[in-house]
Amino acid sequence: MTDARLPVAVLGATGAVGQTFIRLLAGHPWFRLAEVAASERSAGKTYADATRWIEGTMPSEAAALVVTTCDPERVRSPLVFSALDATAAADLEPRFARAGRFVLSNAKHFRMEPDVPLVIPEVNASHLALLDAQAARGWTGGVITNANCAATVVAMALAPLHAAFGVRELFVATMQAVSGAGYPGVPSLDILGNVIPYIGDEEPKLEREMQKMLGTLRGSAVEPAPFVVSAHANRVPVEHGHTAACSVRFATKPTPAAARAALEAWTGDPVVRGLPSAPARPLLVSDAADRPQPRRDVMAGNGMTVTVGRVREDNLFDLRFVASGHNTIRGAAGGSILNAEVLAASGRLPWRPPAGA
Amino acid sequence: MTDARLPVAVLGATGAVGQTFIRLLAGHPWFRLAEVAASERSAGKTYADATRWIEGTMPSEAAALVVTTCDPERVRSPLVFSALDATAAADLEPRFARAGRFVLSNAKHFRMEPDVPLVIPEVNASHLALLDAQAARGWTGGVITNANCAATVVAMALAPLHAAFGVRELFVATMQAVSGAGYPGVPSLDILGNVIPYIGDEEPKLEREMQKMLGTLRGSAVEPAPFVVSAHANRVPVEHGHTAACSVRFATKPTPAAARAALEAWTGDPVVRGLPSAPARPLLVSDAADRPQPRRDVMAGNGMTVTVGRVREDNLFDLRFVASGHNTIRGAAGGSILNAEVLAASGRLPWRPPAGA
Amino acid sequence: MTDARLPVAVLGATGAVGQTFIRLLAGHPWFRLAEVAASERSAGKTYADATRWIEGTMPSEAAALVVTTCDPERVRSPLVFSALDATAAADLEPRFARAGRFVLSNAKHFRMEPDVPLVIPEVNASHLALLDAQAARGWTGGVITNANCAATVVAMALAPLHAAFGVRELFVATMQAVSGAGYPGVPSLDILGNVIPYIGDEEPKLEREMQKMLGTLRGSAVEPAPFVVSAHANRVPVEHGHTAACSVRFATKPTPAAARAALEAWTGDPVVRGLPSAPARPLLVSDAADRPQPRRDVMAGNGMTVTVGRVREDNLFDLRFVASGHNTIRGAAGGSILNAEVLAASGRLPWRPPAGA
Amino acid sequence: MTDARLPVAVLGATGAVGQTFIRLLAGHPWFRLAEVAASERSAGKTYADATRWIEGTMPSEAAALVVTTCDPERVRSPLVFSALDATAAADLEPRFARAGRFVLSNAKHFRMEPDVPLVIPEVNASHLALLDAQAARGWTGGVITNANCAATVVAMALAPLHAAFGVRELFVATMQAVSGAGYPGVPSLDILGNVIPYIGDEEPKLEREMQKMLGTLRGSAVEPAPFVVSAHANRVPVEHGHTAACSVRFATKPTPAAARAALEAWTGDPVVRGLPSAPARPLLVSDAADRPQPRRDVMAGNGMTVTVGRVREDNLFDLRFVASGHNTIRGAAGGSILNAEVLAASGRLPWRPPAGA
Repeated sequence: MTDARLPVAVLGATGAVGQTFIRLLAGHPWFRLAEVAASERSAGKTYADATRWIEGTMPSEAAALVVTTCDPERVRSPLVFSALDATAAADLEPRFARAGRFVLSNAKHFRMEPDVPLVIPEVNASHLALLDAQAARGWTGGVITNANCAATVVAMALAPLHAAFGVRELFVATMQAVSGAGYPGVPSLDILGNVIPYIGDEEPKLEREMQKMLGTLRGSAVEPAPFVVSAHANRVPVEHGHTAACSVRFATKPTPAAARAALEAWTGDPVVRGLPSAPARPLLVSDAADRPQPRRDVMAGNGMTVTVGRVREDNLFDLRFVASGHNTIRGAAGGSILNAEVLAASGRLPWRPPAGA
Repeated sequence: MTDARLPVAVLGATGAVGQTFIRLLAGHPWFRLAEVAASERSAGKTYADATRWIEGTMPSEAAALVVTTCDPERVRSPLVFSALDATAAADLEPRFARAGRFVLSNAKHFRMEPDVPLVIPEVNASHLALLDAQAARGWTGGVITNANCAATVVAMALAPLHAAFGVRELFVATMQAVSGAGYPGVPSLDILGNVIPYIGDEEPKLEREMQKMLGTLRGSAVEPAPFVVSAHANRVPVEHGHTAACSVRFATKPTPAAARAALEAWTGDPVVRGLPSAPARPLLVSDAADRPQPRRDVMAGNGMTVTVGRVREDNLFDLRFVASGHNTIRGAAGGSILNAEVLAASGRLPWRPPAGA
Repeated sequence: MTDARLPVAVLGATGAVGQTFIRLLAGHPWFRLAEVAASERSAGKTYADATRWIEGTMPSEAAALVVTTCDPERVRSPLVFSALDATAAADLEPRFARAGRFVLSNAKHFRMEPDVPLVIPEVNASHLALLDAQAARGWTGGVITNANCAATVVAMALAPLHAAFGVRELFVATMQAVSGAGYPGVPSLDILGNVIPYIGDEEPKLEREMQKMLGTLRGSAVEPAPFVVSAHANRVPVEHGHTAACSVRFATKPTPAAARAALEAWTGDPVVRGLPSAPARPLLVSDAADRPQPRRDVMAGNGMTVTVGRVREDNLFDLRFVASGHNTIRGAAGGSILNAEVLAASGRLPWRPPAGA
Repeated sequence: MTDARLPVAVLGATGAVGQTFIRLLAGHPWFRLAEVAASERSAGKTYADATRWIEGTMPSEAAALVVTTCDPERVRSPLVFSALDATAAADLEPRFARAGRFVLSNAKHFRMEPDVPLVIPEVNASHLALLDAQAARGWTGGVITNANCAATVVAMALAPLHAAFGVRELFVATMQAVSGAGYPGVPSLDILGNVIPYIGDEEPKLEREMQKMLGTLRGSAVEPAPFVVSAHANRVPVEHGHTAACSVRFATKPTPAAARAALEAWTGDPVVRGLPSAPARPLLVSDAADRPQPRRDVMAGNGMTVTVGRVREDNLFDLRFVASGHNTIRGAAGGSILNAEVLAASGRLPWRPPAGA
């Protein structure tokens, strides 16, 4: 019996986000992990030998794959998940796009390019139409990016509120998990029993990426949502899960009850419904006085649901709340996979999901 | 040879803040720990037997003291440090004040009373003049309070900025240590590898106490500083040290350089200079990109110095910075002791510090 | 359509182990959570109102149940999972047994009684025959205990080694998770960034319970395995998962390879195979130099598999290794449920599992 | 006024142990930090620029020093503290010794060489006589080593017991702080909420170094103490402080009371008494049921005192206890400095401590 699934590759497969891709792709109903690529240093080894696996047990379908270099001549899968860092991505992702591959990128390099979709599918799947404009670059495939992990969590909570009330100003203070820094990442001597009130280049991303995601597609360009963000990014001794305390001013001030209702009603773009990685609900609203909490809520919806709590009035702006979500699943690998599922479901890939799926 | 030091008592001596008092009073040059008081359950036992000591080694001068109940008939010291909780404080502290004792209180009960000074001595030692108004309560002694531990840390950073530029609006997101919840306090199952985005009754304190401390004494009343605070209080897995991310709007917008200069120049009310518990500098300004950090900066100035860093422009308001300080030293027991030293130095106690001290 | 599952009750349902029972019983194919019981203080409230839920989201089948007291007149289920502490268990569990119920107990009270089975089903399901002797107590039901959580983890690793080589002496140093102390349990001020080299009454359990479990049923009594244990029990800042460093002397010294082979080959008593809560393998042997690790291995086999690693020669005894397992699943609630499944499968309950199950 | 202190250098000054040297040498009464040396990459920069300072605030006497390479032609101080790793030490430390310098080494390379003293001064200061034998290597200075940090903590606790009762067999399970791995050292993703039951090359050191330290100097060689060690080394999420659970068999079995008495009476070699870095007592014995604990006891004696607790009988051997001490102070930099003070006090350096010091 043949495997009718679409063969896919992971670039940067040995790192922390790469490993999350491997974990989430194991047993995926549509995509078959066919290739793993990493740096020269790893090439030629089995994935098991090349990788210091940092979570649970390595999936058997990955262990025996031989690592190749990140070269479109060697990596042949039409769908490519990229866990490359920004520098490597700048060089390699276009080569794959030019070679006709669809690259789901986690790097910041192309996020703010006008013709590159920056997508959380429940929020702005329609922005995938920007892909058509990439032909002008000579790309027969394309690059689709997801946002910074903390920006993703906050943007999901803002999406229904922005639609209903118009976000104008946002203060956000994040408390971010160490897995956001990759592996080896944050030294334990820096973070045990400590807070680091700084994450390199994180605040600028939090201050500009959400406007693009919550923006409006006009022709072949996205008009950013007209709001200003002031961000304080902090690292805390948490394994997974970014938490964000938010104060928001809107065009139309909602009552906390109205805001809550908007959050609870939101199911996101219908194109996402029923996709393999889509959670039952993209947002959960908690009634508890002290939730969301990263350790307790991070795995809601298998890591794809953002939990929002403490929805209340603000003394200075209109509304305060706390949002928390999984940074390496919803905020990275899981988000990319869901993006790819939307691509497949909407006919943008040279492959169709099974009928009835 | 007689001990010329002033005998002092600690109420609530067996709890977490009480223990910090005991630790800081050991070997104090002016004050001699003479009495320890706690609940009925502990009364009659030695302090060593009554106390589950939670830090380092119990000072020998405390171990053999016999615990009494919190009754001004039994506790005879003229100066009384109170680590009582709000409910017990409401009842017991006035009894001590009526009996002629000066009570340095850490409870919230009297903080916002118009005739009760809420004091960080470098910030508003002048407010101690409110004590005179307490005679109207029939108190021959008096009650002096210190603020909520997180409010104390932020107020110290704001003090020189308010003096120079006039605080008008403040967003503050705190990341607070577990010792702020006392002992046993926060269960480890709640906080290991986690963030709790809620601390009971903490945000209201952060939203009103700073205005009183930064307010202006007019006759026998304090006119609060005219600013509004929006607070997000979070618990993080840190032992000691509260950290606060702040965004501030001022009457007059300062450049970050001007704000930094004001912070660095500040030495606080001169009455504090040279007191036994006064740090060389009440504020330290850090140049490092990633400071202050609680574990690394909490013991600056023996826990009495607040460290400020990341002074920079804000996208929405005027200025952003991070402040961090020791919650049970500067924010509780150490603050009370420094308040008492000011009382002694300014002649308000029936005892004078040694000449040349 | 009727629910053919056996109605079951949880005693002590609001505590930490009680909650783990609730979580594991949600959706159980054989057992239907029908009743929750706790102290007077909780009785009459819904489970949702009575419980400070400490993990993820409370299962909906539990939330609306009304809590009753732990009284066999009120709790009618024939199968009763007990998360009571030793004192309460001493009084209440016999009342349920006398009333014809089968009580799966986690308390230490009855563990060492000659007529009470102390069971890890893969290890000594045959000991369930002791139940017959409980008739002499006037019990028409019975009490089945599981062992101390750390003793359970070590006993599982020892079982195949004892069978093959005969354990004679064991040094064991444990590093135990905070969830072993229940909720609120260990204060965070005690354990953040710390080790507590003492757990009350833990070492005696580690030193006597394993011999009973690895002992031999002779008629209606268990002859304990003839070995001596020296235990060092330590608490570490880990959420779930007890880890034990072991040095063992055997009657017949095995090579590390032979020991490894015995561990890998072991599948336990065949009666367990295919039961709903039985893991694919009770033991996993890791090749990695630095495994098992509690955070990474605790959920092996859904928390029912013990992971063993670092199998190597000992300088003083014969063999060294490290074992790690989930203390509230395999070591408590999950172990009890598996015991109950064995009871059901072996016809000791007034209920039969569905054919083909 | 001239500084009469002896100029000293630190090799490997920018790393974690190097930084501890810098911290402990700041304000040292005998030694003046004159030179800092590190790798080529740092050479030419100021110490402040070359170093990612990981604890508190960098001492001002170090900040402006210009880093040189680890070359005896450039580093001229007669006394050299080495925080080099084993590979670098193997090459560089002999060059300094040959150039007439006294090198206090923390690396394992020379520890087991017959003519190299491996010294904890309270335990075996007499072994410094081995230095005379180093002339045969053509060294006009010499190399003095301290032991592995965990071995140091255990050896101090064993010293009085070995003297009184003769250690024959030792089981030791350690729980070691992350600072033992240097900086960046242990990734936070590896150790947050986790235990790693393996530390590379640690168990072999624990199994052989103590016998040399507790051995007997016979002529120009040390006859190792005749005991065998079985070690289990574990990493735990603790910042500083290694804790060791020990079970010991002796030539003469002591009662726990006798063992306790021996531990309490011990003050170590009298040559150490009154030295600047010598603690009032090298060992503290705790009565508390749950001590020593690393976070609470690590700074006993400014990090130079080892705390011992839970002295009790063992089921298999003779005695059990727990020892805990500071791994980077007593177990590394502080130990080296105390060794150097003994050298100075005993006239082995070309410098004399001030009379009356």
